[in-house]
Amino acid sequence: MIGLSPLLERDSTVPLYKQLYVYIRHQIESGKRQRNEKLPSIRELSTFLLLSKNTIELAYQQLIAEGYVQSRPRSGLFVLALEPVMEMVPMVCKKDSQGGPGQQERPPLIADFQYGDVELERFPLAIWRKCLMDAFRFESRQVLGYGHIQGQKELRAQIARYLQASRGVECSPDRIFLASGTQQAISLLCQLLPQIRVVGMEEPGYDGVRTVLANHRLTIVPIPVEADGLSVEALRRSRADAVYVTPAHQFPLGGVLPVGKRRELLQWAEETGGLVIEDDYDSEFRYQGQPIPALKAMDALDRTIYLGTFSKSFMPAMRLSYMVLPERLAGDFRARLESYSQSVSPLLQQALFLFMKDGHYERHVRKTRKSYQARHRTLLHAIHREMGERVGVIGQKSGLHMLLDVYGRESTELVNRALEHGIRVYAPSRHWMNPEDCPDSYVMLGFGGLEEERISASIGRLKQAWFDDRT
Amino acid sequence: MIGLSPLLERDSTVPLYKQLYVYIRHQIESGKRQRNEKLPSIRELSTFLLLSKNTIELAYQQLIAEGYVQSRPRSGLFVLALEPVMEMVPMVCKKDSQGGPGQQERPPLIADFQYGDVELERFPLAIWRKCLMDAFRFESRQVLGYGHIQGQKELRAQIARYLQASRGVECSPDRIFLASGTQQAISLLCQLLPQIRVVGMEEPGYDGVRTVLANHRLTIVPIPVEADGLSVEALRRSRADAVYVTPAHQFPLGGVLPVGKRRELLQWAEETGGLVIEDDYDSEFRYQGQPIPALKAMDALDRTIYLGTFSKSFMPAMRLSYMVLPERLAGDFRARLESYSQSVSPLLQQALFLFMKDGHYERHVRKTRKSYQARHRTLLHAIHREMGERVGVIGQKSGLHMLLDVYGRESTELVNRALEHGIRVYAPSRHWMNPEDCPDSYVMLGFGGLEEERISASIGRLKQAWFDDRT
Repeated sequence: MIGLSPLLERDSTVPLYKQLYVYIRHQIESGKRQRNEKLPSIRELSTFLLLSKNTIELAYQQLIAEGYVQSRPRSGLFVLALEPVMEMVPMVCKKDSQGGPGQQERPPLIADFQYGDVELERFPLAIWRKCLMDAFRFESRQVLGYGHIQGQKELRAQIARYLQASRGVECSPDRIFLASGTQQAISLLCQLLPQIRVVGMEEPGYDGVRTVLANHRLTIVPIPVEADGLSVEALRRSRADAVYVTPAHQFPLGGVLPVGKRRELLQWAEETGGLVIEDDYDSEFRYQGQPIPALKAMDALDRTIYLGTFSKSFMPAMRLSYMVLPERLAGDFRARLESYSQSVSPLLQQALFLFMKDGHYERHVRKTRKSYQARHRTLLHAIHREMGERVGVIGQKSGLHMLLDVYGRESTELVNRALEHGIRVYAPSRHWMNPEDCPDSYVMLGFGGLEEERISASIGRLKQAWFDDRT
Repeated sequence: MIGLSPLLERDSTVPLYKQLYVYIRHQIESGKRQRNEKLPSIRELSTFLLLSKNTIELAYQQLIAEGYVQSRPRSGLFVLALEPVMEMVPMVCKKDSQGGPGQQERPPLIADFQYGDVELERFPLAIWRKCLMDAFRFESRQVLGYGHIQGQKELRAQIARYLQASRGVECSPDRIFLASGTQQAISLLCQLLPQIRVVGMEEPGYDGVRTVLANHRLTIVPIPVEADGLSVEALRRSRADAVYVTPAHQFPLGGVLPVGKRRELLQWAEETGGLVIEDDYDSEFRYQGQPIPALKAMDALDRTIYLGTFSKSFMPAMRLSYMVLPERLAGDFRARLESYSQSVSPLLQQALFLFMKDGHYERHVRKTRKSYQARHRTLLHAIHREMGERVGVIGQKSGLHMLLDVYGRESTELVNRALEHGIRVYAPSRHWMNPEDCPDSYVMLGFGGLEEERISASIGRLKQAWFDDRT
């Protein structure tokens, strides 16, 4: 018995193999196909469904590639056990999964407010592909070998130019060091600057960095974030060697560190000999008022380590972050780095260099800034329209996420109810070193990866989930 | 005054812009052009040399790209200060730099026996480019987003298949974890397996790993490598929680760990609850006898962490290594990894998956194995021919490097004399935890990046350098 009766639309714009793949995937996900169950052979299914073998094969290959089924030599295809979801970016095939047959269980996911998702729809794929291809024109040792330990000089020169123009940060390329992500950069700091033993960390603050610091056995002192940014008073008492801050857009609360606090922070560094680690992760996206220069730009005494990333402003898949070290640390750091290999592929570095050199990067940032601004506005309007006074929005007009205070409610319930309506939102408590200090009524919405219509519709559903369907 | 009089060969196969670029670069490198000196404008030079503006521009762009000169807005091009050499792979434009004009200073580099260089001449660039382009066909979230924390499932499945076929290692893809290089993998082990506090390390052993372990503040106990591999006796006394070994090809001494020692090692792990970290970095390249399965393949009790890399067998620029964790550790490791992002670009992962799936990887390994075998044979013959009984060769017939014992001589002198003759060889003492234990007469030759003719010629020059020109 074949047991596969998909409703295939032969005149749909969705290719037949994809319809078939979505159908079978759904059967597996919904438990209609058990683990170790054998799928019909390509020939059988081709005869049964009156589809070409090629179509069946493409569908099967996709299922194999995504780990839903396994090909066992000389036996056929078998359904695999599903692992718990481990994706940073869940591989939800959004449009396809809406209208599939037989969905008694959890409704399909309509929108995922995952922080870290970025706009990919208008990503300049063709240009990026061309830059990648052009990268191959360079001497092969340059793009196929290990590359420069700090990262390719020409790319670092582009980054230096960009930092000066857009963030007011003056630095020579030889003080820039690339790493395959911000966590990797933080890890290198921990490994190569042994003078850092106690780190003050914004509370709440970015969990991804705190985990790396903790896993390097550094002592972490939580420094409370007050209405106007972290408490420099508390920092003074902490005896920290360094402090990790997000001045442009406090993560996750969303505030901008005012200039007074910035001065106090630099003064602390001067008086104690401490280091400021400034993570400028999403400063490209500010939607009103003047751009505010980086803290580093004010730092005449050169006590700030500046961190930047291409994950938000370009794409996560670059896996490329960078740090700018103070002059006094750069030499030592470079010497210690000598036993290391650069962790970013020279091929990607070369392509990014070409992309930046020809002005595509700045154009892309300008374009996405507009687009995120629209998404941000849509989100705010929808929240106001649907939820009115029942929620508070936390965070200033910048970045790719915001916190929602759903008055009098509890985040686990909010997250679960949302999921039951096909919307994924997140409890932000992991970003508190003491999670119990996170107000129970907070949920976090990352909107970078969602188009305006979807945002608008999703907030409507969230309203239903949270306020209409209470049982 | 223009001050540029290159001897350009208009009918050479080397393009004119490249001849010009090499000429100017040499002027800068040899100090004929000082820092901050202004170069003639494109128009001036074009008139003076009777070359098209395009040619001049291309040469200048290359100089800018490589950081020799800097373009200052509205002022022109200026010579930059040269940084000390920091490249892992020095950017020597080998053929071009031989016959350049005016070389009173150090002779141009003819051959660099840098360990880590690989064969790039016959690298299947066109296929690899195609795989990269094809990677873009997948859903954009899959190749532009953060990707799966452990690495893409389909690539891990290919690696699992490859490990089984070529190394006798059975593992499910969910126990495989990708990282942007072996050092990055080791760093993750240090960060996420806090039970590892004391690590036994082959003495001598790979400096790049030892540095990472030390920079994570682990205690390192050197375990002497005897004629038949590391001393399990010494390991027993060490109270190590884990031991780092290179059984397929001891780094840097080049021996294969015999089966008896392998059994003892696994027995040590069983008795003490210790972990074996097997770095199988170049096992693809064995030039005689049967392939020897990985230590991991013998490890019935699953106490071995297996490390593999694509840096040697494919290309360094992949920046992709992987580890296979024992079942009992994989779950915990995965849970701790949840706050991390994968550090290898999903785009490169997807391209590598396609490359492996279509059999290109195995073909490439077979092809390069033959080619390295020829290089290895040529190197041995040349050493025998030129140096006879005056040197001893250390290392078995595998891998991409060997040690030379130049009887009665001293490595600093050997390295310097070689450099004076345009050949770069390396002192291996950095791979000893106690560098003074490294015999003074050892030098290290990595031959992966050198063609046969160059190897042969270089050994002739080394003989001159070391034995003929003694003053």
